[in-house]
Amino acid sequence: MARETRDGETRVAMVPELVGRLTALGYEVVVEPDAGRGALHTDDDYVAAGATVDPAALDDADLVVSVQPLATHAARRLRRGTTTVSFLPVGGPSAELGLVADLRDLGVTSLAMELVPRISRAQSMDALSSQSLVSGYRCAIVAAGLLRRFLPLNMTAAGTVQPADVVVLGAGVAGLQAIATTKRLGAVVRAYDVRAAAAEEIRSMGAKAIELDLETLEGAGGYAREMTEERAARQRELLTPYIAAADALITTAAVPGRQAPVLVTAAMVEQMRPGSVVVDLAADSGGNVEGSVPGEVVRIGNAQVWGGRNVPAQMPGPASRLYAQNVVNLVALLTRATDDGRDGGDGGHTLDPDFDDEIVAGACVTHDGVVRHEPTRLALEGSAP
Amino acid sequence: MARETRDGETRVAMVPELVGRLTALGYEVVVEPDAGRGALHTDDDYVAAGATVDPAALDDADLVVSVQPLATHAARRLRRGTTTVSFLPVGGPSAELGLVADLRDLGVTSLAMELVPRISRAQSMDALSSQSLVSGYRCAIVAAGLLRRFLPLNMTAAGTVQPADVVVLGAGVAGLQAIATTKRLGAVVRAYDVRAAAAEEIRSMGAKAIELDLETLEGAGGYAREMTEERAARQRELLTPYIAAADALITTAAVPGRQAPVLVTAAMVEQMRPGSVVVDLAADSGGNVEGSVPGEVVRIGNAQVWGGRNVPAQMPGPASRLYAQNVVNLVALLTRATDDGRDGGDGGHTLDPDFDDEIVAGACVTHDGVVRHEPTRLALEGSAP
Repeated sequence: MARETRDGETRVAMVPELVGRLTALGYEVVVEPDAGRGALHTDDDYVAAGATVDPAALDDADLVVSVQPLATHAARRLRRGTTTVSFLPVGGPSAELGLVADLRDLGVTSLAMELVPRISRAQSMDALSSQSLVSGYRCAIVAAGLLRRFLPLNMTAAGTVQPADVVVLGAGVAGLQAIATTKRLGAVVRAYDVRAAAAEEIRSMGAKAIELDLETLEGAGGYAREMTEERAARQRELLTPYIAAADALITTAAVPGRQAPVLVTAAMVEQMRPGSVVVDLAADSGGNVEGSVPGEVVRIGNAQVWGGRNVPAQMPGPASRLYAQNVVNLVALLTRATDDGRDGGDGGHTLDPDFDDEIVAGACVTHDGVVRHEPTRLALEGSAP
Repeated sequence: MARETRDGETRVAMVPELVGRLTALGYEVVVEPDAGRGALHTDDDYVAAGATVDPAALDDADLVVSVQPLATHAARRLRRGTTTVSFLPVGGPSAELGLVADLRDLGVTSLAMELVPRISRAQSMDALSSQSLVSGYRCAIVAAGLLRRFLPLNMTAAGTVQPADVVVLGAGVAGLQAIATTKRLGAVVRAYDVRAAAAEEIRSMGAKAIELDLETLEGAGGYAREMTEERAARQRELLTPYIAAADALITTAAVPGRQAPVLVTAAMVEQMRPGSVVVDLAADSGGNVEGSVPGEVVRIGNAQVWGGRNVPAQMPGPASRLYAQNVVNLVALLTRATDDGRDGGDGGHTLDPDFDDEIVAGACVTHDGVVRHEPTRLALEGSAP
């Protein structure tokens, strides 16, 4: 397991609790010193779980797991044929095309967690979902903290205080979790998503589905697809009164590997009341709210606008736990039993990715000197000199 | 209505929504300019509600309402015979004996909201309760925000994340609200209060009552009474394992007009796990947690310790709304109809406190040149030269 070196990354790819799962698969688990610190796991915790701690952990590894893509200098320490498992953005504003070219040239087999197909067999490996769950909860708690009023209805001897009105845009995993959490706290929650199927999910969480007189946009893998500028403008117009009436607005509409759509203009935020709060979970990928800044709270009109920046890293404990579980499940898929342990066999296992498997084929970016992810290969060739 | 001048006070004693209740009682409502700003009410909001805005509001007032006690220079502007309604601490570390002497000498009739008796007829005037409701909610939200993990159980395709363990000490209004809010968020909540009756209330909120092998301490008006140092030491000893096991500890044990009891020593906090959070709502009045600092987050052992400082002022909107309602209800009690409006009468009212009324008698600190609150009179005479 590699130590994360990117600024602000507190998560880790393996937690002590799950080391035993990897050793059971036949792996010797070696951890870079201090690698767990961000998620409050000490080297001793890993040793107690059966791992060893070694500054040279990466040098002879068959398999390297991390949250963020390896830094180039770390990748260059890998042996030819090493497999890496991490997030590895290949599209959108944060695409890592230079690193992909390096991994290709180094003969590294790289698997990108965000490319794991969204099929039911791969649910337990879906790190985008598990991290979105963390983000969705966190942004609801952030909204409740910024909002200087009660979320729930309060009936007291001194009169009744009305519950807060919350609007959630985007009802994917993060949006639904934001809905669930603000509902738990007693807010009146309205939510909107461009996908038709979302209205039912929104209602199942106890929120009201905002229904606009617009065509729906169902895309691949349960994500929304992009829309025309005309539709986007009409959508903004129809959403304006809902946003103006909200005490808190939470936006969660991000599509992996793409620029986030601007759902809310600054002019729309300016119609909100004094004391309003906006939480833009998509600020990292361009922002659903015009003017939001990742990692900062800015003022637009009467509203405080919080821009998310690597939000899962704000809850490194559970985010790491869930990510590590995703990793373990993927690693199990990459591992083949060489002996069933009966008749005196050694019960051995070997790392042997099956590239005919839909999940492995989908997640693989580079292997054996070639870029196997087609759009990335085309992007690299397009950008080649 | 006076503008609040104390540092950090964002609440206001009257909100536009309730101005009409005072005019219906026959009062002309005059507001100092910009008085509502902290709670996001503009002068225009008050004017629209039927009040006038005047820098000289205090000079000719029959009745002055505020949250904090008036500053001495403001009190000196009052006519003899003016009535003031505000918080006015007369005991404990924040007692305002100097101001009380001034109010006495000025011939002001002063009523202290914290002295309103805790009887059922006065429930709607109980500002300590209404503000504790706000504090209790707020400190639960603060704890959820500081804690970098989920409060609820999360069962996902990538495995289960256990709910957080929360311990609440003190189960008065604030404690019960903190329990309710952390329970809503899905935490496993355990709570303790020295009063026997509290266990049932704790259980009714869905939390587990911590029962220690100690005598209970029931005091007057539903507040706990003080305990011997021997009992306090034994209580700390018995609470230690519960606190060591908690992800978040929220302490709310404060008795108005007294130094808050130290329920938790720094040594107890040092036994908490990495990532733990402590919220000490009583930090303002000395602290339930040794080492907590009002208005700051300090580190003790592995825990982040948040010390509350005028916590209701962190939610000025609802805190002001509830306080203003308490004030209106008390003012209504102080007001006598001089004419029932029939037979051509003017339906007039006059401010005419009935000092035989248990509530008025209990809340009154000074009247007509004398200190009527006996312990305060004794304290003043004791401190006289």
